Amino acid sequence: MLESAAVRIVLDAMGGDFAPRNPVDGAVLAARTFGQPIVLVGQEEAVRAELARHDLRGLDLSVHHAPEVVAMDEPAPAETARTNPDTSIARGIALLRHGQADAFVTMGHTGATLAAASFRLGRIHGVRRPALASPFPTLAKPCALVDVGANADVRPEFLLQFAIMGSAYASAILGHPTPRVGILTIGEERGKGNELVHEALPLLEASALNFIGNIEGRDIPSGSVDVAVMDGFTGNVLVKFAEGLARLVQQVLNDAARSDPVSMLGGLLMRPALGRARHQMDYRQYGGAMLLGVRGVVVIGHGRSDAETIKNSVGVAIRGVEAGLVQTIADAVARQPVPRLAAPVAAE
Amino acid sequence: MLESAAVRIVLDAMGGDFAPRNPVDGAVLAARTFGQPIVLVGQEEAVRAELARHDLRGLDLSVHHAPEVVAMDEPAPAETARTNPDTSIARGIALLRHGQADAFVTMGHTGATLAAASFRLGRIHGVRRPALASPFPTLAKPCALVDVGANADVRPEFLLQFAIMGSAYASAILGHPTPRVGILTIGEERGKGNELVHEALPLLEASALNFIGNIEGRDIPSGSVDVAVMDGFTGNVLVKFAEGLARLVQQVLNDAARSDPVSMLGGLLMRPALGRARHQMDYRQYGGAMLLGVRGVVVIGHGRSDAETIKNSVGVAIRGVEAGLVQTIADAVARQPVPRLAAPVAAE
Repeated sequence: MLESAAVRIVLDAMGGDFAPRNPVDGAVLAARTFGQPIVLVGQEEAVRAELARHDLRGLDLSVHHAPEVVAMDEPAPAETARTNPDTSIARGIALLRHGQADAFVTMGHTGATLAAASFRLGRIHGVRRPALASPFPTLAKPCALVDVGANADVRPEFLLQFAIMGSAYASAILGHPTPRVGILTIGEERGKGNELVHEALPLLEASALNFIGNIEGRDIPSGSVDVAVMDGFTGNVLVKFAEGLARLVQQVLNDAARSDPVSMLGGLLMRPALGRARHQMDYRQYGGAMLLGVRGVVVIGHGRSDAETIKNSVGVAIRGVEAGLVQTIADAVARQPVPRLAAPVAAE
Repeated sequence: MLESAAVRIVLDAMGGDFAPRNPVDGAVLAARTFGQPIVLVGQEEAVRAELARHDLRGLDLSVHHAPEVVAMDEPAPAETARTNPDTSIARGIALLRHGQADAFVTMGHTGATLAAASFRLGRIHGVRRPALASPFPTLAKPCALVDVGANADVRPEFLLQFAIMGSAYASAILGHPTPRVGILTIGEERGKGNELVHEALPLLEASALNFIGNIEGRDIPSGSVDVAVMDGFTGNVLVKFAEGLARLVQQVLNDAARSDPVSMLGGLLMRPALGRARHQMDYRQYGGAMLLGVRGVVVIGHGRSDAETIKNSVGVAIRGVEAGLVQTIADAVARQPVPRLAAPVAAE
């Protein structure tokens, strides 16, 4: 068997709520786990200070300096992404662009990363809008939600491309050989939905995808669909709603386990099993969302990610590179002509 | 203290997945609990057969015949609602229209009920679109979600009215004296959202509501908002997604409690507390959604409701009538002029 080429990952050391500590810890863990070279991009001194806490023997870890940082609450991320080439996000993506790395991973500002990737890497030929794909847990394999926030306002033909890209993602990253693609709407019957869904439906039906038709909100956690296609407004609301619900359920369970001595004992006995259940439901184990449709593998994890999650994000990026996801998407998009149903929207 | 007038409830005996049994059981329970007169509308023979299983002494329960039923999977509910006056939904709403009852409660077809109520009761003067309000559980009082499915495509000024009506509902039904109203979008900053949200925001800011600005999906379960305003597509997706998630969490917890003998014992000990927690999170305890903006109190419960939930739906209807919710909404809508931002949409 031939030795496969190294996958060179650039990890944003300054991204996320606990940077540079967590990204550095995650990079060390990832380098040890996957044996691939990792470049930490960020303020060199701060990054090296964190690295000094680790035993780095045998690990292929390097630091690429970037003097500036996009704050997690940056108010004008798109502007910053376009005008400032010195942030860790911009410099990390530049390494990708210049062929010095294969994938970029960040826990940093989502909007800034989207903008920097679109602006500095560019879109795959034919892709109308890049989209953010996120795995969502089910009892079986996770379901891919596309788009979870890159595009608040979309057009029907964008949804067709989200489906094409999401299908490639679900196959390469989530392990669905022939992903079942559904369009998220408000009823199973063909006529149910808003205008966007009505117009997108015939495009999806005419595609070469394994399209199963309308799905409802409940079909995502039930695992009856592998790729759920939606506009980025709905997707972003859903993902954050699930996050809030998870916190609420956790709180309610904790309260239940403290409500009386018998329940406390029960909670104690159930703790390991509940921990496993919690892990099963924790979308962070899947390592973050992937930006589909740009000329490179870009993974964006949650700002609160710990080292384990960051390591998983690196794993997702490696899988994306090894599967040739960018080329797969380019081929799939090229095969599927996308009609222009009306005048292009302003932003294009 | 003056004796308050009786609140006359019409309950659709044929609505829901377990009709007429569950609606009849719910009606008996409600009549016993609230001491108010209840009219069961539906196929008289079938309804009387179910009533015969109960001890009805002292209860003010009557039957109003309706020969036809809207099936739960009726493919053309709006058409049926307009053209068929003989369904239990149409006849029940006719009783309301003719002043023979104060509120209509159904576990039946949501779309058919929306259409029948809009067509046969009519909208409150000035209301552009009726909307469906649903309570959502938090650790404190429930949050009102408006709209959860009456309007798949909306205009900014509709959202303003959803906020006005939702605020009246949250105050009258959910016990929020001065409800905090937020608009659901994809970021806390002012500029975050889709075009709809961008256009609705200044209308809400200029209103007399207790408007707290943008909210995200996670703010609903966290209880940081009392009225979450959204288009009916997003709302319907959210509610069904939560339903699916609840089922998934239940399944995962059940599996956890069966995974090994120690966990089984723990699960057994925790069962009462978990049961209480589950009840706390069960939106069905709140008794269903309310249709706001029509000339009457209309409550639509879940098709799978049991007798207890149906009783709670009747309770919601009684509260709506006693609080004078229809008049409150009429007054609030009259006080708040709604701009026409563009050409009216086709359906109006």
